[in-house]
Parts: sequence; C-alpha cells; structure tokens
Amino acid sequence: MKPPISVSPRNVAVIGATGAVGAEMLRCLEQRQFPVASLRAFASERSVGKTVIFKGQPVTLEALTTTAFAGVHLALFASSAAVSREFVPAAVAQGAVVVDNSSAFRMERGTPLIVPEVNAAAMLVHRGVIANPNCVAAIIAMALAPLHKLVPLRRVIASTYQAASGAGAAAMAELEASTRAYLAGEAFTPRVLPHPYAFNLFSHNAAVDAASGYNGEEDKAMNEIRKVMALPALRIGMTCVRVAVLRAHSMSLNLEFEKPICVDDARRALAATRGVRVVDDRGRNYFPMPVDASGADDVLVGRIRTDLSDPSGCSLALFISGDQLRKGAALNAVQIAERLN
Amino acid sequence: MKPPISVSPRNVAVIGATGAVGAEMLRCLEQRQFPVASLRAFASERSVGKTVIFKGQPVTLEALTTTAFAGVHLALFASSAAVSREFVPAAVAQGAVVVDNSSAFRMERGTPLIVPEVNAAAMLVHRGVIANPNCVAAIIAMALAPLHKLVPLRRVIASTYQAASGAGAAAMAELEASTRAYLAGEAFTPRVLPHPYAFNLFSHNAAVDAASGYNGEEDKAMNEIRKVMALPALRIGMTCVRVAVLRAHSMSLNLEFEKPICVDDARRALAATRGVRVVDDRGRNYFPMPVDASGADDVLVGRIRTDLSDPSGCSLALFISGDQLRKGAALNAVQIAERLN
Repeated sequence: MKPPISVSPRNVAVIGATGAVGAEMLRCLEQRQFPVASLRAFASERSVGKTVIFKGQPVTLEALTTTAFAGVHLALFASSAAVSREFVPAAVAQGAVVVDNSSAFRMERGTPLIVPEVNAAAMLVHRGVIANPNCVAAIIAMALAPLHKLVPLRRVIASTYQAASGAGAAAMAELEASTRAYLAGEAFTPRVLPHPYAFNLFSHNAAVDAASGYNGEEDKAMNEIRKVMALPALRIGMTCVRVAVLRAHSMSLNLEFEKPICVDDARRALAATRGVRVVDDRGRNYFPMPVDASGADDVLVGRIRTDLSDPSGCSLALFISGDQLRKGAALNAVQIAERLN
Repeated sequence: MKPPISVSPRNVAVIGATGAVGAEMLRCLEQRQFPVASLRAFASERSVGKTVIFKGQPVTLEALTTTAFAGVHLALFASSAAVSREFVPAAVAQGAVVVDNSSAFRMERGTPLIVPEVNAAAMLVHRGVIANPNCVAAIIAMALAPLHKLVPLRRVIASTYQAASGAGAAAMAELEASTRAYLAGEAFTPRVLPHPYAFNLFSHNAAVDAASGYNGEEDKAMNEIRKVMALPALRIGMTCVRVAVLRAHSMSLNLEFEKPICVDDARRALAATRGVRVVDDRGRNYFPMPVDASGADDVLVGRIRTDLSDPSGCSLALFISGDQLRKGAALNAVQIAERLN
C-alpha cells in the first residue's frame, strides 16, 4: 500500500537499526516507498562500523551522539526509553521530527500518541516528538476504534497472548534455541527471559507493581489505550502473558458498551476499517492466528460474538492477532511519518 | 497423597487405556496406591493383544464388548463420548460403578458431575455413573469454589491457554513434530489438528455453533462449571484457545462477586484449599506456568489482584495453570473413585 499522504523527500535516521523493530522499520520504509532522500542508521557501540542493507545498498552504522542529527528531517527511534530520553531532545533541537517507539514520552502531555487509523488528528499539534504506542495498545486500539464509533465503549477486559518479538530479537532466538534444546532432550538455561520458554507460557516479564499486582506492560497498555482512544475514563482490566509465538501478538477481548450492540453491525464496522481484516469463519473454524498475522499489515479480528456473561446484550467478545513488529511497532511508526509534512 | 477415604479392594477396568488420559489413569491408580484387586485394560481394535504396564506387570489389552464387565467393581472410561454412550450402560448393568471422562452423561439430570474438592456431596446419590468434567471446567472450578465461599460469585470471564494434550496423545506428537519441522526449515502438513501448531496458537478446534459463535469446548466448559458449582444462573463468558504447550492448561480469569472482595482474603482462602497451590510472587515475577503445573496434582493460582476495570471493588483477576491430564482428567477421575465405597 502506498503512503496515503504525499511526503516530500526526507533525510531519515533510524536509531536502533539492528534491533528487531529497527530492522523492520527499514523494511517498512522500503516496502512502502517512503521518500527517503538519505538514510542514516545508528546502533549501539558493538555494531558501529558494520552495515545494514537498505534498498540493496549497505548503510554503515554510526554511533549515536547528541550532535549526530544535523540535516536529519525525520528520526525514527527504535531504542530503549533510556536512549530516547537522552537523544530525542537533541534530535528535536537540531530540527528533526522524531517518531519514538519507546515508552519515554508516550504519556507526556503535549506529546501525541498516535495510531493513524484511530487518532491521526491528534498529531497535528506536536513539539517535535510523536510517540508510537506500546504494541499491545496499538493492536487493541485498531479493533476498539471502529466499535466505539458504533456504540460508545464502557469497559475493556483483555488477556494477551504475546510473542517473543516484543522482548527483542534475542528473545526470539531464545525461544527457538530453547525449543530446539527441549526437542533434543538437552538442558537449556534462559538468559534473555526469566522463565523457560519452550512449550511454556508465563506472565509478562515486565516488573510487577508490588501494591497493585499489575506489571509494567499492563500499566502501559491500559494507559496508552485510554490516551489513543481519547477516553481517559475508559475502564480497562488487562492480563499480559508471553506465549511461545515468534512475532505476532493475540488478544482475547471482552468489551462492554453503553448500549446493546449487534454482532453483525460490529462485524460490518470492523470490515470497513482500513488496517483491519475480519477473519471470522465459523463454518471452517478459521479465526485470527499468529501465523497469518505475522508479516501482515492488517490487524486480524474474529470470533466476533455476544459476550454471554452480560445478559444486557451490551457486550461483545473478540479474538485478534496483529504483527507485533509491524502494526505493533515499525509499520505504525512509518505510517505516522507518512502523515508528517 | 494417599486416598482421603479408605476404599476396599476393587476390580478395576480402564477403558481407553492406551490414550493420553487412560495412561495417566493407570499412573494415578498406581501413585495413589488405589486398592486395585485386579486390573483390566480395554483399548480399540488396533491395540488389542498388546500390553500396558501397571505396577511393573504387563496387562494385556482387551477388546471392549457389552458383556466384558462381569466382576468389575469400578470402570474408568477414558474414551470418546460415542464409546461411553455405547458401553457405559452395559458396565452399569453388570454391576460396575462408572467414572466417565467423556462428555456423554455430564449434563444428564441424575448424573453427578464431580470435582471432589468442590462438590463431593453431590456424588452421594447416583445411578451408577459419575461424570468427570471437561478439563477446563474442572481446573477453573478449583479456583472459583473457595472464592465463591468467601463472597458469592456473579460473573466469570475466562480466556484459556490450552495444551495439546486435550486433543490427545496424537496432538501432543503433532505439536512436537511440527515444531521440529519448523526449526529444520521443513514443510509440515497438520493431520490431527486443523491448523499449524508450531509457534502458533488457534481458536479451539471444537466445532463452532453457527448462530452463537461459541465452540463446543466453550459451551461444555460454561455449562459444566455451572453444574459443578451448583450455580445454574452463573454468568460466564468463555474464549478457548489452543496454545503451543504440551499438557497443562492455563486460564486468565476476571471474576465479579456480589460484594467487594479483598485480594488478601482471596489469597488466604485459595491457599487454604486442598488441591490449590498459590503461586503469586510479585517480587520475583513468578506466577503459574504450564512447566510447573505439568505432572503436578495441584491447580496453581496466581496474579491475584483487583480487576481494575470494575471500580466497585467487586472484581478480581487471576491467572491459573493445571495439568490437563491430571486434575483436568485422570487424577480427578481417580479422586472420585477414592470416594466411592
């Protein structure tokens, strides 16, 4: 799909270009024919001097410094929140517009947090930084937004089935390596994630708040969904779980609305939404799956049905899958960039 | 753990002794020192004449006939609903008491559906058949029952993370074989389950009702939880998902009660329940996981916290894991048998 809005050629920098998200950003820029006048790629010390490939050409990885952004129009940050906190202000000061995939600025007042299909208008006013939501928030917001337009949303209960990719390329490698070891009957000591991953699942590895019992991933996703949806009082309960999947996140959603909502209306509204693909074949038992979502731009939505636990008819249940590295991160960031002019 | 009630020595028959559940029944009988006077093992045609091992001795597999139950006191059925429908009445007519793991009689009026820790009293009156619940229902009921005693339960929303074992030994083998193929870069065509399983997940493979959109597994689990809990009006919404795990089912639960419920009270009530183990270490991010539940008798319960989507304080969220073949099937059946005298 070509960019929806024409952008003049940009000098682009990708920060964290060797990570899972950074590498996917390069692919998205290329696949979507983003008008890149020049590309610079930044990485951590150990990768400096190596190259990444963009449009068939090698690009030498540079070290990140606070003076590195001269002439850069657009900086896509795919690094940690700590790196973003240190270098995003410098990039903005040197005239770049930043799309930041870290959590550093997402909840800051004055920083738009954007899923273009949901709240593109909110990015018209910014101070140089547009934040890209947490992968869970972005993927869930894609399914909520068209339904909320149909009938106002009151309450969201979400249980996630999250892929290794959210913890980075090393976690994906650990899932494969630990599974290989399991199948060979060999011992394996996890290094990247805190628990055995082969044929297992575990509560999300983000730190857990001792008082509330919610982990950092859940807190981020709940807060960010409210901000993206511009529904600060939306009631959300979230349980984030890491499953043995490589790169697409799935979610089981129970949604309560202000008024009764009809399954067929919901399905139609979702089917008419750009970036959503309804996969809801009851006869063939074919619904959203990570293998189908992986590498796809669309968020897959299915199992659209009345939530039987609410006799008022105001509640729906859904099951969704979206590529964590694309709509959950890199694709959404590039879609934001396409709307910057 | 030794049987809680002394049972006089029984002539025992296991029907479906070569399946995943039947084999686990043999292990449970042995491990729990069930007083087996004689053991007979029945299997389908292709296994007849082969042997299974019980207490170190080979037991020759017999073909199932309607006249096969003479002298049998206790018949444990671990076969399909069709086999149970055909042969359970014959077993009862010949004087056996049947514990049936299939869905054939579970919802029949007059047939107790039992999780001993939850509703043992309901098995005092029966007509020769005690039904063993669906694995999801049994495992969830273990977590619900102590909480419902604390504060009456009003609504259950459950999303499951179900293991291959629920679809039998062949599905477990397919999960391993397809994952091996994936890691070797080889193609694999699913034969047992309808979708690719390696590093994937999919909506439960039970047939989906065209009108409601719920699948057979969800319908069974919802109905059976109501029967086991003796709460015919309990509101339940269930989403059943198959994940790449070999033999323990996990569930994310959002529970609403009639009155506010305190997390610490809930944790204490669960910790005091036989058959439940609280695994809820926020500091170490250690919660129920299939690798820990597999082979264990207890249902692991953790992530006990207030459901933030309900501002009334009447709702809790939990995450649980239980061995599908043990508490979800074979162990529960043997525990029922231990209470028959």
